[in-house]
Amino acid sequence: MKLITKPQILASLDTERALSAIEEGFIAYSAGNVQVPPVQAFTFAETNGDCCIKSAYKVGSPTFTVKVSTGFYDNPSNGLPSNDGLMMVFSAHTGQPLALLQDQGWLTAMRTALAGRIAARLLAPSQVKAIGILGTGMQASMQLEQLRSVTDCRQVIVWGRHAEGLGAYVTMARDLGFTVRSTHDAAELAGLANLIVSATPSREPLLQAHWIQPGTHITAVGADGPGKQELDPGLVARADRLVVDSITQCAQYGEVSHAIGKGLVTANQLVELGALLASRAHGRESDDQITLADLTGVAVQDAQIADCVLAAIGA
Amino acid sequence: MKLITKPQILASLDTERALSAIEEGFIAYSAGNVQVPPVQAFTFAETNGDCCIKSAYKVGSPTFTVKVSTGFYDNPSNGLPSNDGLMMVFSAHTGQPLALLQDQGWLTAMRTALAGRIAARLLAPSQVKAIGILGTGMQASMQLEQLRSVTDCRQVIVWGRHAEGLGAYVTMARDLGFTVRSTHDAAELAGLANLIVSATPSREPLLQAHWIQPGTHITAVGADGPGKQELDPGLVARADRLVVDSITQCAQYGEVSHAIGKGLVTANQLVELGALLASRAHGRESDDQITLADLTGVAVQDAQIADCVLAAIGA
Repeated sequence: MKLITKPQILASLDTERALSAIEEGFIAYSAGNVQVPPVQAFTFAETNGDCCIKSAYKVGSPTFTVKVSTGFYDNPSNGLPSNDGLMMVFSAHTGQPLALLQDQGWLTAMRTALAGRIAARLLAPSQVKAIGILGTGMQASMQLEQLRSVTDCRQVIVWGRHAEGLGAYVTMARDLGFTVRSTHDAAELAGLANLIVSATPSREPLLQAHWIQPGTHITAVGADGPGKQELDPGLVARADRLVVDSITQCAQYGEVSHAIGKGLVTANQLVELGALLASRAHGRESDDQITLADLTGVAVQDAQIADCVLAAIGA
Repeated sequence: MKLITKPQILASLDTERALSAIEEGFIAYSAGNVQVPPVQAFTFAETNGDCCIKSAYKVGSPTFTVKVSTGFYDNPSNGLPSNDGLMMVFSAHTGQPLALLQDQGWLTAMRTALAGRIAARLLAPSQVKAIGILGTGMQASMQLEQLRSVTDCRQVIVWGRHAEGLGAYVTMARDLGFTVRSTHDAAELAGLANLIVSATPSREPLLQAHWIQPGTHITAVGADGPGKQELDPGLVARADRLVVDSITQCAQYGEVSHAIGKGLVTANQLVELGALLASRAHGRESDDQITLADLTGVAVQDAQIADCVLAAIGA
């Protein structure tokens, strides 16, 4: 079993290859060619933590992948990052463990950011006035970084609860070449930005339906487990196109689950990202549509990005 | 993250401590004090393999455990063992990975054998005439090894399909101090033994109801996933006591699931091992009862045995 450290992973991953691999993964998943057992989830109430275990086997692949990712939201007060995790790759021919990727959650963050990039490419309006980012963590940074190849817009407005997080985000975004505005008011963000990414561990809606302008695309990546929510269910209902990474998962605990629970939308309104990619259609049908991509994170993304690392390292 | 090899695990595990820990684990599980997400299962049709991922967090424990175990049944023809796997232990305080136990499936085999020992202690008849073992693999050996502390009987009859496997088993059992008889006829085994363990990857019944004598206890450990079956559903229905490790799992894919599916038994006839242990009652109520322990393997066993290894190693 090969042990692969985070520095090795950072040094070897080819982002563009990973993007293609993840697209392939979504297509295979939506075509029913990936075994994805139900996500395992833990909640650690006493330590404000959660953990999920996601596993996938793309039928015909020589490998399958098991991924453990954790979020312990009090960690920063002890000098530790909130997120951690690892991936394991096994042989689909013999069952033997082949590699342990000690990525500390970085590959999960990257495959999520790449899914956001794919969604924005398919759904962003043709003229992006400003990018809006909710959240100031690692995922909020990586989403912005990946959006640079989707749009020429270099205006960003970032929303956060805490001045310290906002300050660090502003510095990071300036270093990426953006003109940056920060706010504690999500309504202000919604009034300025028409390509919005929400990347927070929120458990209550941050964006209200009536704040959103026509012609806006929103990618929500925070609702990766039961109880999490970033969008008003009325906003989900108001969207003209509802794209999800997994109908099964999103109907269970994604943003759309809350709207389905209230009877505002039905599962048959949902289009999977893999189906959209396979159709080679642009997801947005007109410039004034409101579009939503609800991304809960599918294990096939983990399997695909892990394979990219192994291929690059020659494992 | 500490890497712990199989030789270190073999050298450090205290079987009696592990037995107690697993008993505690079963009790906590049946009392509802363990988070056990649904088992993830893969089937690799092309390579005759399967994999399951079992995870558990005993509430209040400083750790939680994720276990991957594989069975690739054509491996022996390539000189590899059928079973492989590993366990990972994480901090329930920070989410950080603490240890990787590279046990190659041995801890899974041991915790399964220890569960068999617990079941036999609670359910075996007072006079064991002969032990009957179906199967000749590692699990079949470990079950016999563990039964030595439950009964003074040193007569064993082993059933297998292949002469080679039977031959090796006979040698192993003699080395353990048993008088051994081998057979290709499971009916013969049922006629001689009144403490029977079935430990095969069978997908069809091996033991028929009318073969079994009154006063027999049977522990079935093979049906650890969908499609597997060792006992005739009529035998399950004939049992006077139905003890299971997990009502949820056994009703889904254990031996009892087939009998439930046929309407021969109902889930409310099932008693969990943890509930039986908590009650401090002997499971067998009379010497002529037929008793059955249906063991699918519960993740809390993995968490408990992994903790024993870490404690012994000082990790």
